[in-house]
Amino acid sequence: MARPSNRASKRIPDNVIERLPKYLRALIRMEEASKESVSSKSLGDALNYSPAQIRKDLSYFGRFGKRGRGYEVKKLKERLKSILGLGDRQWNMALVGVGKLGRAILGYGRFATQGFRIVAAFDRDPTLVSKKVGSLTIQDMGELAETIRNREIQIGIVAVPASQAQEVIAQLENAGIKAILNYAPITLAPQRPEEVKIQDVDPILQLQMMTFFMKNQGEPKK
Amino acid sequence: MARPSNRASKRIPDNVIERLPKYLRALIRMEEASKESVSSKSLGDALNYSPAQIRKDLSYFGRFGKRGRGYEVKKLKERLKSILGLGDRQWNMALVGVGKLGRAILGYGRFATQGFRIVAAFDRDPTLVSKKVGSLTIQDMGELAETIRNREIQIGIVAVPASQAQEVIAQLENAGIKAILNYAPITLAPQRPEEVKIQDVDPILQLQMMTFFMKNQGEPKK
Repeated sequence: MARPSNRASKRIPDNVIERLPKYLRALIRMEEASKESVSSKSLGDALNYSPAQIRKDLSYFGRFGKRGRGYEVKKLKERLKSILGLGDRQWNMALVGVGKLGRAILGYGRFATQGFRIVAAFDRDPTLVSKKVGSLTIQDMGELAETIRNREIQIGIVAVPASQAQEVIAQLENAGIKAILNYAPITLAPQRPEEVKIQDVDPILQLQMMTFFMKNQGEPKK
Repeated sequence: MARPSNRASKRIPDNVIERLPKYLRALIRMEEASKESVSSKSLGDALNYSPAQIRKDLSYFGRFGKRGRGYEVKKLKERLKSILGLGDRQWNMALVGVGKLGRAILGYGRFATQGFRIVAAFDRDPTLVSKKVGSLTIQDMGELAETIRNREIQIGIVAVPASQAQEVIAQLENAGIKAILNYAPITLAPQRPEEVKIQDVDPILQLQMMTFFMKNQGEPKK
C-alpha cells in the first residue's frame, strides 16, 4: 500500500474530511456497477455537491484525474481509502454495553465488510459477564484496559445509558482509545480533545432537525 | 401549546438548526437531574460550545433567560420542543425494509419515548408480507401510499439495500412524505429538495472520519 502524502492534515478543513467518506461510499458503488471513470459532474450529481466543490476537496490531497477524462474510479477509491486510513488494514473495536442497543450494534453487518471488527464486548452487569453473544464472550469492565492493549483495539463503541456514558468514555480514554463512536444519547467531552475524537450516533437528533423543517413549512395535519 | 413566533425560519442557518436538538437533549437530562436553571456557560460546557455561541443560537428564537440568572431549564426545554415541532404531538413513521437492519430499527426504544412512532412496516419480499414483527404486520409496498395517507404518516425510514433505496425514496416522496431517515448506505437526492429532507444514518461514515484523524496523528500499531 502506497503511503499518501497527506501528513499536512492539520490544514484540511473538518468539513472536507466529513465529505471524504461520502466520496468513498459513492466510488465503491460505482466500481460495483463496473464504472471505470467518473467526471466531477457525475460524482457531484451522485452526492448533491457541485463539481467545483469536488475538485476543490480532492485538490487537498494531490492531483487526481485527468483534464477532460475525469477520475479513474478504482484509483481514486484506493487513494481515498488510503487517505482515510482504511487501505488493507482492519480496525479493531470494543463494544461497551451489551443491552438491546449493544446487541443491535453487534448485529450490524456493515462494520465487518468495511474493515471495522468488534473483537470484544464489555458490560458492568455481572449477570451478563461470561455470557456468549454471537462469537464473543461478554467481559467484565475490569478487563477493559488489558483487553484493549492485548487485542490492539483502536476504537470504542459506547452503548450504555446516558448516565454511565461519561465514565465509560474516561475508561476508554485512559486505556489509550483515540476514537469513540457514541450511541449514548448525551454529548460527551473527551479529557484530551486534541487527541481523542468522539462521534455521536443519535437518529433522534436527525429526526428533530427534520421536524423543525416540517413544522416551519406549514403545520402538518394532526 | 403556545405557537412559537418562528415562522421566519428561512433565515436561520442550518448549523443553528442542527444544534437545537442537542440543546434539547442536554436540557432534558438537566431536568431529569432536577436542575432548575442553567447558565449559558454550563449549558456550553455540557455541549462543548462556547457560552457566546449558545446565546447567539437561542437569540434567533426570541428572548430566553434573564441576565445573571441563566435559563429556566423547564421553560427553555418546552420552548425548544415547540420550536422543533415536538410539543405534545407524536410523529408517525413508516419503515420500509424489514430485514436485519429494519428489525433493529423497530427495536430501537428511543424513537417511541421521544415522540416518534413506527406505525407501519413495508417490504417488497412476498415471503415477509403479512408476517408479524412486534405489534406490526408487514405490508406489501403496493399499500404504501394508501397507508401513509390513512395513518397520517409524516416520516419514512429507509432500511433497504442501497440498490433499492432511490426507488423507495421516490415512492415515499410521491406518497407525500417530507422527511426521510435513510439507513441505506448511499447518498440520495429527493425529487423536490426544497420540500423533502433526507437525513443519512451511516456509522461507517463517522468511523472513517475518525480513522482519518488517527492515521494522521501517527500510524497506530499494526
